[in-house]
Amino acid sequence: RANGLPFEEIQLASGTTVDPGDIEARLMGGSFDVLLINGHETSTGVLYDLPAIGEIARRHNALFIVDAISTVGADEFQMDDWGIDVAILSSQKALALPPGLSFVALNQRALDRLDSASSSGIYFDLKTYLKNQARGQMPYTPAISLFLMLHERLNQMRRVGLDQGIERHAQLAKYFRDQLDDLSLQVFPLYPSNAMTAVRCANGINARELVRRLETQHSIYVAPNPGELETRVFRVSHMGDQHDEDVDGLCIALRSTIDSLRPVREMSQ
Amino acid sequence: RANGLPFEEIQLASGTTVDPGDIEARLMGGSFDVLLINGHETSTGVLYDLPAIGEIARRHNALFIVDAISTVGADEFQMDDWGIDVAILSSQKALALPPGLSFVALNQRALDRLDSASSSGIYFDLKTYLKNQARGQMPYTPAISLFLMLHERLNQMRRVGLDQGIERHAQLAKYFRDQLDDLSLQVFPLYPSNAMTAVRCANGINARELVRRLETQHSIYVAPNPGELETRVFRVSHMGDQHDEDVDGLCIALRSTIDSLRPVREMSQ
Repeated sequence: RANGLPFEEIQLASGTTVDPGDIEARLMGGSFDVLLINGHETSTGVLYDLPAIGEIARRHNALFIVDAISTVGADEFQMDDWGIDVAILSSQKALALPPGLSFVALNQRALDRLDSASSSGIYFDLKTYLKNQARGQMPYTPAISLFLMLHERLNQMRRVGLDQGIERHAQLAKYFRDQLDDLSLQVFPLYPSNAMTAVRCANGINARELVRRLETQHSIYVAPNPGELETRVFRVSHMGDQHDEDVDGLCIALRSTIDSLRPVREMSQ
Repeated sequence: RANGLPFEEIQLASGTTVDPGDIEARLMGGSFDVLLINGHETSTGVLYDLPAIGEIARRHNALFIVDAISTVGADEFQMDDWGIDVAILSSQKALALPPGLSFVALNQRALDRLDSASSSGIYFDLKTYLKNQARGQMPYTPAISLFLMLHERLNQMRRVGLDQGIERHAQLAKYFRDQLDDLSLQVFPLYPSNAMTAVRCANGINARELVRRLETQHSIYVAPNPGELETRVFRVSHMGDQHDEDVDGLCIALRSTIDSLRPVREMSQ
């Protein structure tokens, strides 16, 4: 958009997933070089069907670019098997490091496409970055302290195994979601990621106020939702060094906060 | 250069400073929008005469942009008084923080110029960055851990006083330079910055080998010089948490390393 490139956007109703058929219809209707999607929509917790979408992108010869920032490490992500040409990552989500680093992975198809692309200035000139990388030269002085953390984190992930790391996210997410019924709360999206749970409030509970009270009264920080869902949905991360005990603490705090927020009418029932 | 903008470059012989008269002659010879200089040339340790150059830039109505990365904190730097329109900083030099952050300061004249500039894509689009900054929004997820360090460091600088911080760099640099004579070494540039000393070796001492031995035999790391000065010049930083004792240790190690490197012919004298 900022570069003045033409684009078409698929707008989804909050919490719904994208229909691969809809993507295919769009791709048939026009000539697209690139299909760009975030693997996991962090504002609503929706996980998209990347394998199905990748197949469509490939069929219509569009470069398939996936923002996988909160996916890799928390959910399955098979760059090669799913026909993903470019994956974008950063340090602060499922890698569970401080923010400050981002990464771009390109397959051979993306590299070939890059070869024929014209450079667009000094910033984010992947072609030059890759050329310099070959001689061990970073584009700028890198945030070395974060790279050292990354190195240790990757070693840790290798020791534990990526599958097991994903399984741990899945278990923690399930452990939390299983307790929502008792709290009269619901998982918001139909296809949730393991990285987080977007939670829908009902019974007159204001999500924004719930988030505020958790923070001020229980020192527990869950994320409010931006935009139109602000009063209805809040978000709980399952990324990072979290355990069942953390979920237990959150659920106890949720119980007491929800009780304090419940309208009087209900309390008298 | 990467953006295809026309430019003219002033090449200097190593270790020499730029002659303001030379800059003025260039500016008179053509129509320049911008004059860009690094306040302190870190490969040779030369400090440029920014007040004089700023006056020339202003006289010829060129925007004066200074890379002040290793200047601010170590040497005097008066953005307003010296007519500097844009100052570029980063975290890892005289601010003595880990690398990972950079900063751009613009005065009103630069902001006005920015207003009439066209945007150049999504990266480093200062106009959009500033608009978002007004509502507290960063361009990307920032490296928060580094910002917390920056906050503490700025508090520290405020407590100590910027002048006193500069004075400390100056004293440390002088303390080191005063000992060079005894080591048969010389300060390389005529106008050295307080941030570091580029040191010239003589008497057949190979600077690259000296750096290597300091590291392997004394665990002291000083910087080799890139390019044509590699065998003749090495660099000692005075930035960060350094004290006279550190300089003493370095000088003792230099003495013993130089003795071990000195040609036999001299030893027999």
